[in-house]
Amino acid sequence: MLDPVLVKIDDDLPNALDRLQTLLRIPSISTDPAYKQHCTEAADWLADDLNSIGVAASTRATPGHPMVVGHADGPGLHLMFYGHYDVQPADPLDLWDTPPFDPQLQDTPKGRVIRARGASDDKGQLMTFVEACRAWKAVHGTLPCRISFFFEGEEESGSPSLVPFMQDNADELRADIALICDTGLFDNKTPAIITQLRGLMGEEITITGPNIDLHSGMYGGAAMNPIRVLTRILASLHDDQGRVTVPGFYDGVPDLDPDLAASWSALNFDHGDFLGQVGLSQLAGEQGHTALEMLWSRPTCEFNGIIGGYTGDGFKTVLPSKASAKVSFRLVGTQDPHKIRDDFRAMVRAMLPPDCTVEFQAHGASPASQMSTDHPAFEAARQALSDEWPNAAAFVGAGGSIPIAGYFKKFLDMDAMLIGFAKEDDAIHSPNEKYDVESFHKGIRSWARILAALQNAL
Amino acid sequence: MLDPVLVKIDDDLPNALDRLQTLLRIPSISTDPAYKQHCTEAADWLADDLNSIGVAASTRATPGHPMVVGHADGPGLHLMFYGHYDVQPADPLDLWDTPPFDPQLQDTPKGRVIRARGASDDKGQLMTFVEACRAWKAVHGTLPCRISFFFEGEEESGSPSLVPFMQDNADELRADIALICDTGLFDNKTPAIITQLRGLMGEEITITGPNIDLHSGMYGGAAMNPIRVLTRILASLHDDQGRVTVPGFYDGVPDLDPDLAASWSALNFDHGDFLGQVGLSQLAGEQGHTALEMLWSRPTCEFNGIIGGYTGDGFKTVLPSKASAKVSFRLVGTQDPHKIRDDFRAMVRAMLPPDCTVEFQAHGASPASQMSTDHPAFEAARQALSDEWPNAAAFVGAGGSIPIAGYFKKFLDMDAMLIGFAKEDDAIHSPNEKYDVESFHKGIRSWARILAALQNAL
Repeated sequence: MLDPVLVKIDDDLPNALDRLQTLLRIPSISTDPAYKQHCTEAADWLADDLNSIGVAASTRATPGHPMVVGHADGPGLHLMFYGHYDVQPADPLDLWDTPPFDPQLQDTPKGRVIRARGASDDKGQLMTFVEACRAWKAVHGTLPCRISFFFEGEEESGSPSLVPFMQDNADELRADIALICDTGLFDNKTPAIITQLRGLMGEEITITGPNIDLHSGMYGGAAMNPIRVLTRILASLHDDQGRVTVPGFYDGVPDLDPDLAASWSALNFDHGDFLGQVGLSQLAGEQGHTALEMLWSRPTCEFNGIIGGYTGDGFKTVLPSKASAKVSFRLVGTQDPHKIRDDFRAMVRAMLPPDCTVEFQAHGASPASQMSTDHPAFEAARQALSDEWPNAAAFVGAGGSIPIAGYFKKFLDMDAMLIGFAKEDDAIHSPNEKYDVESFHKGIRSWARILAALQNAL
Repeated sequence: MLDPVLVKIDDDLPNALDRLQTLLRIPSISTDPAYKQHCTEAADWLADDLNSIGVAASTRATPGHPMVVGHADGPGLHLMFYGHYDVQPADPLDLWDTPPFDPQLQDTPKGRVIRARGASDDKGQLMTFVEACRAWKAVHGTLPCRISFFFEGEEESGSPSLVPFMQDNADELRADIALICDTGLFDNKTPAIITQLRGLMGEEITITGPNIDLHSGMYGGAAMNPIRVLTRILASLHDDQGRVTVPGFYDGVPDLDPDLAASWSALNFDHGDFLGQVGLSQLAGEQGHTALEMLWSRPTCEFNGIIGGYTGDGFKTVLPSKASAKVSFRLVGTQDPHKIRDDFRAMVRAMLPPDCTVEFQAHGASPASQMSTDHPAFEAARQALSDEWPNAAAFVGAGGSIPIAGYFKKFLDMDAMLIGFAKEDDAIHSPNEKYDVESFHKGIRSWARILAALQNAL
């Protein structure tokens, strides 16, 4: 079943690139109201394209940009494929070497690329799956599985319509497993399936000491300085081993499964190179863990911003009234973001000198996501990816949070396989975004292999 | 000799207020080039006024605004009186109840005031001395001492011409002792002579970790966060007792003279009220010292500003490249600002993790000033002030730095007596600045008493 599909994919690559370029020409910037019509245009184009391969697809209005939903019958496993058709703004325009919405095929020292805003994030990735389905349909007349398609147009602007839409249409959207194509390869030769994502809990804390800014000559030495209080609190949040000191913080942090640990170890991740690219050399996290554990399976406390007093040029002898910091925690396992928020606040309050007050502002609270990899789809997809790429595919973690995976679990009770073909140098969200033609071509072939494997896996 | 002068002062008060109003009408804002001519006008007015009372005075050109220098012969002690004729900008104008350069005499619940920019800082104060001399001259035909007058017009804009002018004219300006009228009463009933001022050493430190801002999801847990490094460094600069931990920091910090300690204690300083006005209640400085010691005779380390990462609204999961802070040290006794700067930098460098770098920017380094109060002028002036005001005058310290006093010592080898009649609520540098008519009137009388005492003190 698979081999003629792969041949078809190879033969049809020029046409597939033409279709992607057509989609890339639509400037579907979701965050800017001036581009609203272009978002609708992209949604319509996708619905039409799905219909052209036998998927019953339509756009659905939301308070924001439309959703695209389509269904195709097929045997066995019911898959749901998610992607987003909206893109980031292209600013600053003057840093682009070619117009962001005039996609160009370019030969570079690292290979042929398609350069445009959205080429990698996420139009190119989304179309890898659509093209795999197109080829399958062309060769066999049907799709290999029952497949639902779900594209949103607000991913780059906070997805305000997503959860309400999922809740209102849960019965229609629910499938056996979700496929999400918005992530990357582990490295240029090694494909990856993300099976665990860290959660995130953010807090903004503002310490107030005196009720007005004071002169440090008049008051310095007698009045409490809120920067002093804030820095003492922040400095107490890590111990000498890089562990977070919030009481009970490690409740729910699981030991890493030995098999997973071994497979991560086999990836031979070069943390020297990873850190070296940003001018660092030392692993600064929780001591006694590997780099990939620090990034994927261990929780963190990071300081994302701090401000207080005079921060302009020169010097001002002010003793400020307020100082504040933005603090975030990456969470793993079953760590409870709400409990950690409470414990963090209690710890901060306990460190406050009598004269100071603190205000807290909550910024998000999402638990970690852990996929149940015992579903046979995971192993089947891994094998399929391994057949396409030079190195065997890996189950990996993600240090960041990809909210959609958690939403599918929470609202639709589906696990998700996060599989993508982006490369580190794709410059997503930046000028000169590109997608390697290799990512696109082998991505399409990868999905064809995965569909074949899932068809047989059931 | 004194009594008829005091009578003359009382009789002439309305005319003295008229003269002050004339000077206040000149908008001599030194920092704004648009007011350059008005600065010259104020200098000319003062030189003319001094000449009218028999002082040989003239304006002297500088690269900035002119100096006014005048000399009057007299018996005995040679005094030099310093003041400044320039004023702060009046912005924001819409917060003034009356035009800032249209001085008004107003009755308020706390007494009669003259309201205008510069009424207290420093035209009103400067004129207390000139009016005392005028009255003395009117009654006795001569001045009681040999007196030099030295007025600058750049005090509110950093005094760029002051030190070069003092160096170029040192022989002309040098006297036995300087009088500086740019400070305040200890409280509404208690006059004060400042005999010690804290020095100031400022440092801006910038910690760099990664060479670009990172995503805290991608790197958090593995890469060093410069805010974490900075807060650890700042948090280590005070111990639990509020003492500064820079090695050798307390070298040169003298024990407080027991007599001075007793006289400060007798001031019954209400630190609860002092802190309560700014919303605080607890003395946050070096434990084991009184409030006045914390403010006047103990050194400090203050954090004047801090910034790093994302500080706008909302949240951004950035792991920043840089974080920086402005740190200042108030110094006492013979603490050496340059040695402390070196020791501070060494301490910071020793706390840096391997991957981080630090840049330092120096902001000023002035040692503390300590007057030699064994000069009989100090005790004579104190007695004279005590005769005029309800409470006995005190030798006090100043928590802030008044550079002119240090310059007189360094370049002219003169001690200075800092005596002034400003009140805490004068709103200097703020809208609706005022000077109490009581400050002006009793200030003039105070100087007459001091001149009489100094005449006899020799």
